[in-house]
Amino acid sequence: MEKLIKVAMGFEKADLVLKGGNVINVYTGEIEVADIAVCDGYIAGVGDYSGIEEVDVCGKYLAPGFIDGHLHIESTMLSPSNFAKAIMPWGTTTGICDPHEIANVCGEAGVDYMIRESKQTPFDAVFMAPSCVPATPYENNGATIDAKGVDRLLDKCHGVGEFMNAPGVVYGDKDVLNKLKCAKNRGVVVDGHYPMASAKELNAYIGAGISTDHECTDIVDACDKIRRGMYVLIREGSATKNLKDLFPIINNKTLRRLVFCTDDRQVHDLLNIGHINNNIKLAIEMGLHPIDAITIATLNAAECYKLFDRGAIAPGKIADIVVIDDINKLNILQVYKKGVLVAENGKALFDAKILDCKDVKNTVHIKDICKDDFKLKLNSNKVRVMGIEPHNVTTKSLEAEVCVKDGEYVTSANLSKIAVVERHKNTGNIGIGLLEGYDIKGGAIAVSVAHDSHNIIVCGDNDEDMAIAVNEIKRVGGGMTAVHNGKVFDTLELPIAGLMSDKEIGYIAEKTEKLNKYATEVLKVNKDVEPFMTLSFMSLVVIPELKISDKGLFDYKSFKFVQIEVE
Amino acid sequence: MEKLIKVAMGFEKADLVLKGGNVINVYTGEIEVADIAVCDGYIAGVGDYSGIEEVDVCGKYLAPGFIDGHLHIESTMLSPSNFAKAIMPWGTTTGICDPHEIANVCGEAGVDYMIRESKQTPFDAVFMAPSCVPATPYENNGATIDAKGVDRLLDKCHGVGEFMNAPGVVYGDKDVLNKLKCAKNRGVVVDGHYPMASAKELNAYIGAGISTDHECTDIVDACDKIRRGMYVLIREGSATKNLKDLFPIINNKTLRRLVFCTDDRQVHDLLNIGHINNNIKLAIEMGLHPIDAITIATLNAAECYKLFDRGAIAPGKIADIVVIDDINKLNILQVYKKGVLVAENGKALFDAKILDCKDVKNTVHIKDICKDDFKLKLNSNKVRVMGIEPHNVTTKSLEAEVCVKDGEYVTSANLSKIAVVERHKNTGNIGIGLLEGYDIKGGAIAVSVAHDSHNIIVCGDNDEDMAIAVNEIKRVGGGMTAVHNGKVFDTLELPIAGLMSDKEIGYIAEKTEKLNKYATEVLKVNKDVEPFMTLSFMSLVVIPELKISDKGLFDYKSFKFVQIEVE
Repeated sequence: MEKLIKVAMGFEKADLVLKGGNVINVYTGEIEVADIAVCDGYIAGVGDYSGIEEVDVCGKYLAPGFIDGHLHIESTMLSPSNFAKAIMPWGTTTGICDPHEIANVCGEAGVDYMIRESKQTPFDAVFMAPSCVPATPYENNGATIDAKGVDRLLDKCHGVGEFMNAPGVVYGDKDVLNKLKCAKNRGVVVDGHYPMASAKELNAYIGAGISTDHECTDIVDACDKIRRGMYVLIREGSATKNLKDLFPIINNKTLRRLVFCTDDRQVHDLLNIGHINNNIKLAIEMGLHPIDAITIATLNAAECYKLFDRGAIAPGKIADIVVIDDINKLNILQVYKKGVLVAENGKALFDAKILDCKDVKNTVHIKDICKDDFKLKLNSNKVRVMGIEPHNVTTKSLEAEVCVKDGEYVTSANLSKIAVVERHKNTGNIGIGLLEGYDIKGGAIAVSVAHDSHNIIVCGDNDEDMAIAVNEIKRVGGGMTAVHNGKVFDTLELPIAGLMSDKEIGYIAEKTEKLNKYATEVLKVNKDVEPFMTLSFMSLVVIPELKISDKGLFDYKSFKFVQIEVE
Repeated sequence: MEKLIKVAMGFEKADLVLKGGNVINVYTGEIEVADIAVCDGYIAGVGDYSGIEEVDVCGKYLAPGFIDGHLHIESTMLSPSNFAKAIMPWGTTTGICDPHEIANVCGEAGVDYMIRESKQTPFDAVFMAPSCVPATPYENNGATIDAKGVDRLLDKCHGVGEFMNAPGVVYGDKDVLNKLKCAKNRGVVVDGHYPMASAKELNAYIGAGISTDHECTDIVDACDKIRRGMYVLIREGSATKNLKDLFPIINNKTLRRLVFCTDDRQVHDLLNIGHINNNIKLAIEMGLHPIDAITIATLNAAECYKLFDRGAIAPGKIADIVVIDDINKLNILQVYKKGVLVAENGKALFDAKILDCKDVKNTVHIKDICKDDFKLKLNSNKVRVMGIEPHNVTTKSLEAEVCVKDGEYVTSANLSKIAVVERHKNTGNIGIGLLEGYDIKGGAIAVSVAHDSHNIIVCGDNDEDMAIAVNEIKRVGGGMTAVHNGKVFDTLELPIAGLMSDKEIGYIAEKTEKLNKYATEVLKVNKDVEPFMTLSFMSLVVIPELKISDKGLFDYKSFKFVQIEVE
């Protein structure tokens, strides 16, 4: 504090001064031509300063570091260190990270790994304690984090992650309430996740202490949530893009209650369109004033998450600064984190190593699989079928008449077989179902990223290739693979919890593109479907309409397991 | 939490439902016709509810309880319990209270008394630990609160009170920085007080962790402070009224950075125009949208002071609700605090007792005073004179030629004698000076409220009456008195620290009016001067130009003591 004051007063030179830039002021909406003095990683002053190092930024725009209000690092398949390298060049200096994917595999140890590896990078990954592990009782996962676990995690986490178990909240489940009480006692932020809540449910959910939601897809829902006191996080993920639909809610009153987030974003998007900068840019393109858009991504996110040490270029704040060439196009030249230049012209300037952490390795625990494991026994020929909805992760619950021979399903030309193989506790559980609209031919695809419990999901048109695919996933300790006519084509290894690669973004992007292309071109997967990502969501039982877990077929409408046979 | 959720869901009846009112939504700027369900003092839901008790508020406007961002209870001369009764009918349900007046007399024990007595009332007095006790080294006061004291107080206080010692901050005084470090370690709010800071000083002051300022009197200063990240508190006190001057700074961007406060407000204003409601009303009269004005007084203040449990009518917030007849006129019908009706039609509905606390009694420690104590010895006839500036608490530093006989000042017709008698430690210190523009004739006035150290200040045209006045203050253990021709006219006793009465507002208002009227009409004090209040500020050495403490005459420009003789 002493040195910061001396530098602010001009008694000592700053470590670094960014000279004469157009400083974006998120408090007043102004642009000031001023110097920014940095000392020990913090902003000492904005005004007229000299420094030991001086950088001329005349004509450039200087914004506070961008904050992503809600994201899952695991969704990128990048490890925390490689994630930091991938996103910091886009101006994201802080992210509110919910590590609930790895927590479903490795429990608290997985969260601990994410925190420790992130700390080795300049990126401020602000971790939230996952609130819903397992996400549901309808599937087997790798670990349970109960209220005591959440309390333990809050010693090292900033708040509590998205509370997907909304029914547990509004119907007063005891362990759920204990988690919320932990959060309340500590005064920390609890993130929400509650699409389509009724008026009373929303009151109950918010009254229980949950203050954000990133699941709004229409303005009615978003307005209701703002009215009742929530911050609404406008999401631009890879699969779910909500900014265009939610844009009309932005006005002078609601602006302060809005934050941007990415939630789940894949490597090709990170490479091509970036990160939170994309939310800002899109909002500007739609007509929002650039400073308003930047305010949402900085000051608002900081206030929403009670990160009072950032979110603005002002004395005492962390010196997270994004240097921008054109404020309307938002092309990012440099990124400073804690006063250190960490990225320039799209490239990270730091190195960060992947932690060698045995807690998150070797997480695929299954016996060797054989083709007979995928036999589908039927008592009737009228069956339920999961109907893919192109460009979406929901399904329709359909019915079909199939051929049955010796009490066993016979492959239909228009249906693919889908299975979820439990991989955490070696229970031997395999749930088997039928999928319409995927259209795989002459092979199988398997992946160990399968929401939310991350068992192995496999889909194919023959049991042999399905077995080969699952055994390949076992061999590499998690990953994604494509099999054709009895042979593995290629595999992206995801050795970290079966969710993340230990390679950098370029490698992952290339490999996933290759695998997806192969799936579409050789295995003839429906062109309107993303082959791997779509599969990853077929096990997400908490969204409509018919899904599959290692325990069987799950019907969303009745919210219970159903037999595959209709009658 | 369980019950709140059940009530929100409609599974149980609310304790209280305010039915069908026009609910002011500070998040969206809307007015919704809705019920407000209250359970255990908190808002369970806004929507369609039924309750054990139901109150029809159709056609009425419902606002969140008002928050005063900065005030000194002692300035009203009301004890905390009587203060609560006086202000709650005006809609103020929370106040950020800096008890630095009593702290200057009684130290930490005084703060403790304020907290304990306030807790017996429904009013949420949010206390800040006084940061500057004593306010300066240029006077004797009753106690010292150093960094360790502030740290101790922070166990029971919400933050740190106004940091008047701005030079101590920007020049890095060690004890000052230790106080700021305490606050930083605890993550609490530190209030500022820094009129006329230079650009660099402001950077240093804010960088040190000080986040508010209530001393802005012009828009340039206010804008500079908002730009650098401060919340600006727009003050409407009794002596200092800043809203009209600061009104132009309010716009859609700055709005969220503004809070209302009263700072120092006297009983006649509390009786006649109210409290924070008056700031809101005035802003509406000047053209601000009523909901914006209410937002400043509620949501903004709550965010500024990190009081996340209030500031809006929304689920999970404390049920502090103001029922208003006409949103433009802001006439307040009822006030609910924690879901309980605490005031109606201008009357408090609760009783609250004054604590019998010996720590804050018998605080006048002086020997008996005689007229010779006020002899003013002079080596020259050319002297410095404090020149009153009507309607202001500053003075001009003047010079005059006076009559000297036997080395002693002889009363001049146009000058009054003023003295400050140290009353805390019985040091016998008496500072004596001359005052132009007060014009008292045939008597003396004395008061034990004298900023910031609250010694006894006395002013008269003859030493005999001055001695009688001070001895009267001693007799009653603190208060304000007027003496005419050797006789005490009347005295308002202020037995609590010599600052506060144990009587209710009506009594104090009547007595002060009587004393002021007597001073003006009988003692002929200048009609453009408030007789007692003006005296109380003559000892405030930290404002221009010439002031007096128990240690002598203090010159603001040179910031040091000066002899009364010019040469």
